[in-house]
Amino acid sequence: MFQDSSPETIETSMQAAWEAFLIYRKTTLKQRADFMRAIAGEIEKPGDELIQTAMKETNLPEARLRNERARTIFQLNSYASFCESGQWMDVRIDTAIPDKNPPKPDIRKLMVPLGPVVVFGASNFPFAYSTAGGDTACAFAAGCPVIVKAHPAHAQTSEIVAKAIEKAAADCYMPKGIFTHLHGAAAAVGERLVKHPCTKAVGFTGSYAGGKQLFDWGNQRNEPIPVFAEMGSVNPVFLLPGKIKTDVVAVARQCAASITLGVGQFCTNPGIIVGIDNEDLRVFMEALSGEIRIIAPAPMLHPGIYKNYVEKRATALSQNEVTEVAVAEKEAMFNEGTATIAATTAAEFISNHLLQQEVFGPYSIIVKCKDLTEMKAVAEHLEGQLTCTLMADENDILNNSSLVDSLQNKCGRLILNGVPTGVEVCLSMQHGGPFPATTDSRFTSVGGDGIRRFSRPLAFQNWPDELLPEELRNSNPLGIWRTVNNEPTKDAIVLPT
Amino acid sequence: MFQDSSPETIETSMQAAWEAFLIYRKTTLKQRADFMRAIAGEIEKPGDELIQTAMKETNLPEARLRNERARTIFQLNSYASFCESGQWMDVRIDTAIPDKNPPKPDIRKLMVPLGPVVVFGASNFPFAYSTAGGDTACAFAAGCPVIVKAHPAHAQTSEIVAKAIEKAAADCYMPKGIFTHLHGAAAAVGERLVKHPCTKAVGFTGSYAGGKQLFDWGNQRNEPIPVFAEMGSVNPVFLLPGKIKTDVVAVARQCAASITLGVGQFCTNPGIIVGIDNEDLRVFMEALSGEIRIIAPAPMLHPGIYKNYVEKRATALSQNEVTEVAVAEKEAMFNEGTATIAATTAAEFISNHLLQQEVFGPYSIIVKCKDLTEMKAVAEHLEGQLTCTLMADENDILNNSSLVDSLQNKCGRLILNGVPTGVEVCLSMQHGGPFPATTDSRFTSVGGDGIRRFSRPLAFQNWPDELLPEELRNSNPLGIWRTVNNEPTKDAIVLPT
Repeated sequence: MFQDSSPETIETSMQAAWEAFLIYRKTTLKQRADFMRAIAGEIEKPGDELIQTAMKETNLPEARLRNERARTIFQLNSYASFCESGQWMDVRIDTAIPDKNPPKPDIRKLMVPLGPVVVFGASNFPFAYSTAGGDTACAFAAGCPVIVKAHPAHAQTSEIVAKAIEKAAADCYMPKGIFTHLHGAAAAVGERLVKHPCTKAVGFTGSYAGGKQLFDWGNQRNEPIPVFAEMGSVNPVFLLPGKIKTDVVAVARQCAASITLGVGQFCTNPGIIVGIDNEDLRVFMEALSGEIRIIAPAPMLHPGIYKNYVEKRATALSQNEVTEVAVAEKEAMFNEGTATIAATTAAEFISNHLLQQEVFGPYSIIVKCKDLTEMKAVAEHLEGQLTCTLMADENDILNNSSLVDSLQNKCGRLILNGVPTGVEVCLSMQHGGPFPATTDSRFTSVGGDGIRRFSRPLAFQNWPDELLPEELRNSNPLGIWRTVNNEPTKDAIVLPT
Repeated sequence: MFQDSSPETIETSMQAAWEAFLIYRKTTLKQRADFMRAIAGEIEKPGDELIQTAMKETNLPEARLRNERARTIFQLNSYASFCESGQWMDVRIDTAIPDKNPPKPDIRKLMVPLGPVVVFGASNFPFAYSTAGGDTACAFAAGCPVIVKAHPAHAQTSEIVAKAIEKAAADCYMPKGIFTHLHGAAAAVGERLVKHPCTKAVGFTGSYAGGKQLFDWGNQRNEPIPVFAEMGSVNPVFLLPGKIKTDVVAVARQCAASITLGVGQFCTNPGIIVGIDNEDLRVFMEALSGEIRIIAPAPMLHPGIYKNYVEKRATALSQNEVTEVAVAEKEAMFNEGTATIAATTAAEFISNHLLQQEVFGPYSIIVKCKDLTEMKAVAEHLEGQLTCTLMADENDILNNSSLVDSLQNKCGRLILNGVPTGVEVCLSMQHGGPFPATTDSRFTSVGGDGIRRFSRPLAFQNWPDELLPEELRNSNPLGIWRTVNNEPTKDAIVLPT
C-alpha cells in the first residue's frame, strides 16, 4: 500500500514540473524521440518482475500482459518516430509579400507544448493506457513534462514502470521534474493536481464519473485547461438483414469473442447489438448463446470492477421488458465475471436511458427492432460512442444510407464487418468520439495525432531566418513536411533576393 | 430596432439547422466552396447601402468599412479554396496488413463536421468577424449549418449580410436551415442558443465577460460542447535596449499608430509597453507622447463601448503609482475616444492585476522596469495573450533568450519589430492564445486552420473502396494531399493484388 501524496508533495512536484517544462520545451524533436525510445527500452528490462506484479494486481493473464507490454513499447517507439517526423507540428509558412498594400509579413507557425500534463491511467490497461502509456508518450512528444497519478488498483506495477521512466530520463539527461509519479486513492489528490496552476492539460482513461469530474474541475479553474477524458462506450453493433441472412453463425461467433475478450473489460467492448426481430435474429441469438454459455468465467481486474459489473448487470436485467438470453454455465468464483446476454425491444431501449449505459464486463444487450425504420430510430437515439459497427453486405449499406449517416454522427470509428475490440496503434486510428465517449470529439487518445491534445500553434511574424526554431528555417534543416504558401513540401525555401 | 427572437423561434430554427446538417454534411468540398464563393459575391451586391448602414451603426469610417468588406470577401474566397484543397481534412490512410498477427485492418480517417454552430459576432468588425465573418465561413467549410445571433450594435448591417447569405444559399440549392439569422439583445437568447441540444459548437469574438459566460454555458450542458471564444488581449510590446537605442523615434511612431488605429478598437491593440527605465525610454515616451497628443479624438463604435473606455481608463489612471503621460489635446465630443498613454513601475504592475486588464480603446500603459531581470518578471507575470511583440535587434534576442522563451509561453503570435494590429488572413496565422485570450489555445479563429474548431476525425475501418467517401478512395479522385502509411502524398493507392 502506498500513502496518498501530501499537498506539499503535490506542490513541490508541480513546481518541479514547471521548471522542467521551461527546459524540456526547448529540446529538439530528436531528443524527445530518443527519450521516448529509452523509456521503451527500460520498460523491457524489469522482465518477469513487471509481468508478475501486474498479474497479481490486475488478475490479467500472462499472455495478455506480455502483449500489452509489447504494445506499450511499440506505442512509445512509433510515437517517437512520428514526433521526429515533425508532421504533428503542422508547420505553415507564408513568405512575405513586401509590395502588397499593406505589405504582407513573413509568418511561420508550428506546434508548441502546453505545459505540464497530469495523466490518470486506466485500471484495465496497466501498461498501454497507464504510467508509460499513450497519454504519457503523447505529452513527452509534444514537449510536456508528465505527472502520473498511479492507478490505486495497480500501484506497484505503476511504481516499476515509473522507475523505468526515471532511469531513461536520467540516462537522457532530462531535467529534474520531467516525470513525477504520485499516489492517491482519495479524490482530493486528483483534484489538487487538476486544479494546480502549473497544470496545463489532463489526460484520463476510465469511467464516465471519473472523467466528467476531472473535466468539470478543469473548467472550473481560474484558467480553464483542456481535459481529454476517454470515458468508455457501449459500441453498438448493427446487424443488417442481408449480411445476417448469409453469414449468421460467423457473425455470432465474432460477436461472442469480442464481448468476452479480456472478460469484457475493454472500452471498445460491444455492449449493444441491434437487429431486426425475425427468424435470422433468432438463429443469431441461438448461435451467440451457444458461444456465451461455454465461456468460462474469469477473474476481473479488481473487486470494485467485479462488484460494479454484478450490480449494473442486475440493474439492467431487472428493467422492464429486459430478458436474459444466455449466461455462461460454469459457476463463477468470487471476482469472476460471468458472460451474459440480455435482450429487449427497440421501443423499450429508446424509452429507458439506463439501457444504453455501459455495463463494464462481458455483457451485451440485444435490441430487437420491428423493422429498419425502428433500427434507424435506435441509431438516432444513441449517445456518442467510440465506435459503431455495421455487420452488412454491400446492398445493406447502399439500401440504408440514412442509417449509415446516422451512425457516422455518433462515433469516432465506424467498423464494417469487424469487431470494435482491437484498437490498432496507427496514425489513421481515431480513439475518441462524441460526448460522453470523450470530453472532446476533436481529439484522439490513440495514434500519433494524440500529440495534438497537448500542443498549440505559435506563429512567428517577421523573424529573421537565423533566429527562428529550426523547424521553421528556410533551409528546412530537419527535412520535415511543411506547408509553404499553401502547398505541402519538404523543399527548402528560396526567397527572392 | 429588432425584437429578440422568441423561444419558439429559437426552437424551430435549431430544429431546422439540425435537419439541414443531415443534408449539408454530405455535400462535396466543391459544393461548400461554391456556396462560400456565392456568399462572397452576394455581399458585394448591396454596395453602398451596406457601407452606409454600417457607418451609421458603428461610426466606423467609410474607407475602413470598404476595406473590411473586401477582407470578408477575401476570407470567404480563401477559406473556400482551402476547404476545396481538402488539406484541413487531415486524411490519414493505413492500408491493411493481412498477414500481421493479429491482421492489421485497413483504416482511413478524415474530418467530419460537428453539427450546427452558433456564431456571436464582434461589435468592432461588423463584417469580418460577424454575420458572414471568419467563424461562419469556417463552419460552412467544415460542413456545419450556422445560426448567427446578430450583434445588437449593428443589427441592421447584420440583416443585410444575412439576406446576402440567404440569397447565396437559395442560388446554391442549400437545404433550408443551413443559415439562420436571429436577434437578441437579452442574454437569455444567447443562453438558449448555446444550451439547445442541436447546437454542437459555438464561435464568439468579443469581451471576456461575454465569452467566458458562453464557455461556461457550453460546459454546463448535459452534453458539453466546444465553445471557441476569442476574448481580446492587451498585446504587450517589449522594448529591448539595443533596438530602442538605435531606433527610438521610429519605434515610438509605430507604437502610436498601432495604439490609435481604428480608435484603438482592435483585439490586437497594444495595451502594454514594457521598457527599461533609462534615458532611451524617456526619449521614447517623449516621441510617443508627441504623436499621441496630435491624434484627433474619433467616434467609438457605440455609447456602451465609449462609456466602458472612459470608465476603465479612469480606473486604471486612478491606481497607485500610475501616472498620465500623454493625452490627445483636441477636446473630445460625446462618444469620441481620446488617445491616452499612462505609465507605472514594473513592481506596481506586477502587484496590481487590474493594470493588465484590457482598456478597450486608444490606451496603453508603459511599464518601467529597473533592468532586464525585472522585465522578465513582468513577462512571466502576464496572462495569456493573442500576441506579444518584441522591438529588438539580433543581439537583444540572443542576449535575452529566457525573456523570449517566456513570451512564447504567453501568446499565440510573437512579432518581431512590427505591430500586433493587422491580422493577416493566411494559413500560417495564429489568432488565438492561452486563456484568457481565448478559451482554447489549440485553435485559431483566423486562417483556414480555423475550420478545425468545427470538425472532428472519423475513421472508417475495413470498408470496401467503393463505399468510402471519395476523399478516402484508393484512386484519390479529388487529387488531395493525404498521409498514406505515414507519408504525405497526392498519389493514388495501388494495393497488392
